[in-house]
Amino acid sequence: MSEAPYLVIMAGGSGTRFWPKSTAKKPKQLLSFGSSNDTLLGTTLKRFDGLSPEDRRVIVTTQSLAAATKEAVGPATHVLSEPMGRNTAPCVYWAARWVAERDPKAVMMVMPADHHMASVKDFRATLERAVRWATEHDDLVTLGIQPSRPETGYGYLKLGNEVSKGPCRKVQAFVEKPDRARAEAYVASGEYLWNGGMFLWRAETILKAFDSLMPEMKREWDAAKGDVSAAYPRMTATSIDYGIMEKAPNVVTFPLDCGWDDLGSWISLETTTLPGVARGPAGVVAGGEVFAVESSGNVIDAPGRVVALLGVKDLVVVEHNGVLMILPKSRTQDVKLVLDQVKAARPEKA
Amino acid sequence: MSEAPYLVIMAGGSGTRFWPKSTAKKPKQLLSFGSSNDTLLGTTLKRFDGLSPEDRRVIVTTQSLAAATKEAVGPATHVLSEPMGRNTAPCVYWAARWVAERDPKAVMMVMPADHHMASVKDFRATLERAVRWATEHDDLVTLGIQPSRPETGYGYLKLGNEVSKGPCRKVQAFVEKPDRARAEAYVASGEYLWNGGMFLWRAETILKAFDSLMPEMKREWDAAKGDVSAAYPRMTATSIDYGIMEKAPNVVTFPLDCGWDDLGSWISLETTTLPGVARGPAGVVAGGEVFAVESSGNVIDAPGRVVALLGVKDLVVVEHNGVLMILPKSRTQDVKLVLDQVKAARPEKA
Repeated sequence: MSEAPYLVIMAGGSGTRFWPKSTAKKPKQLLSFGSSNDTLLGTTLKRFDGLSPEDRRVIVTTQSLAAATKEAVGPATHVLSEPMGRNTAPCVYWAARWVAERDPKAVMMVMPADHHMASVKDFRATLERAVRWATEHDDLVTLGIQPSRPETGYGYLKLGNEVSKGPCRKVQAFVEKPDRARAEAYVASGEYLWNGGMFLWRAETILKAFDSLMPEMKREWDAAKGDVSAAYPRMTATSIDYGIMEKAPNVVTFPLDCGWDDLGSWISLETTTLPGVARGPAGVVAGGEVFAVESSGNVIDAPGRVVALLGVKDLVVVEHNGVLMILPKSRTQDVKLVLDQVKAARPEKA
Repeated sequence: MSEAPYLVIMAGGSGTRFWPKSTAKKPKQLLSFGSSNDTLLGTTLKRFDGLSPEDRRVIVTTQSLAAATKEAVGPATHVLSEPMGRNTAPCVYWAARWVAERDPKAVMMVMPADHHMASVKDFRATLERAVRWATEHDDLVTLGIQPSRPETGYGYLKLGNEVSKGPCRKVQAFVEKPDRARAEAYVASGEYLWNGGMFLWRAETILKAFDSLMPEMKREWDAAKGDVSAAYPRMTATSIDYGIMEKAPNVVTFPLDCGWDDLGSWISLETTTLPGVARGPAGVVAGGEVFAVESSGNVIDAPGRVVALLGVKDLVVVEHNGVLMILPKSRTQDVKLVLDQVKAARPEKA
């Protein structure tokens, strides 16, 4: 490839999913997991070392997280603060304009801040192939994750025709989170990948797609004359998936098989293998010294505590920041229900 | 009554039942519960104010607890340190000899250190009647607790004939902990009381019973010439219930109905009403600020913590001294199983 690609990291988040370890002031990407000393954001950035130099890296975050984010990244890394959350389409549009001002032909990689890749080597191999494709084609490229289970919590990409001899395939459709039966059929067919929210394209390619599918974005942006605070409230608050990817004709995907996990809830401590996270008879232990009798399948993170369990199965037991949270593993998607109560009464703990 | 009775409090214990709030170094009687500032031992002693003066009070404890016990009681209260645990019969024998040296005709009340009485007034009324009886009769008197439920965790007293117009009854038999069906029949019959381990007798009366039923006790004691360390290992390690009460012909009981609870496990926070222990939708809360969704029937004591529960039912959740313990309420009798593991690896937490 001619020029090094730009890296755009979307790093907002409300700190809900790993609460009480994560909080609104310190969401997941600013935390470290297992025995790593790096934040997830730092780990994410490292995966692009040697590919995207620091001054071509842009972190898009919220105003309330801007200071903490700047501290967590190198001094040459750019940080863009969104004046308000408007879902991912305005965020991608801003980043694309930002890159296009510098080099409209440059490839930009749009990546989440806080996902896990067991094999960075495999990730890099696929990524570099995808970057090369995006450099040479007027396509919207996405990395589609090889599914390892019939997950109902993710959207899927339905594969279309091969577009070359290589692994690159057209994306026939973006599919919403399926029910269990559909998820099983998708995985069995071999014709579906998980949508992991990882995109690559030349800045001018995605801007062309916006002009075609969401022409109001350019209109509002230009009307605000570069004043993001003025433009943002008028831009369409939708996802890049819904606004562009599901509708664009030129979407292709490179299948990614690198032990990806979105670290979407406390259960991810079970589905990943993080250094410093131990698997014992009582379950997975990320923090705390656990003693257990007739207990299994638990997810435990209570650093500095002796944790004594008796006859306790399939619970999430977490203590951070003076907050002890207990729930069955089957309810991890509902953390927000109790977090909302805490937020109302003790906002400093949320 | 002529002379004030002596009060003998048995205050040993291994700190198991309310672990991790209680520990081997600070068993239950040295802790305060709910919003009380008094230890249970202090609360117990207060119940005898005006009846038994401080210099007639004797606390029998272990050597390792002697210093902490002395700190917890008034300076004039006597503390006897057992050289080793030998169950309750040697303890009662020693206390009886100690009282008899001062006044063999004096009544001594042998009481647990850490039980709860909802109504001290009702306890005192029954106690004073029992003291008067013991003063005037050569009987072994026990307070039998009016059962409020078919408890399988206690021994029962089977009532015999009335021995006066008053509420005093002969005890026909001491009955071991029954199974559920028997316990239900006992309670339904109205002819059974719980054995609460509360006894009254003149010193010479109980010593006479020892001489008749456990003559080896006097033999060993006298052979050791008052050297408790020499006598104790040679005395029969059995309970006063089994060694004397079950076999003596002159046992009577006064029924006690005062909201008694032995505070035998974390579940006692449900069966008692302690000031400072709140009943909320999530269950009983002795410590911690609890936020809960779809959670009920729990027993929670985590002082200083925000406790967030989601979909959690009938658990005991306790955090003290850096130890977090979780178990279903149905397993509170088995705390020792996990505590033994902690004791082996982290004795300072046990």
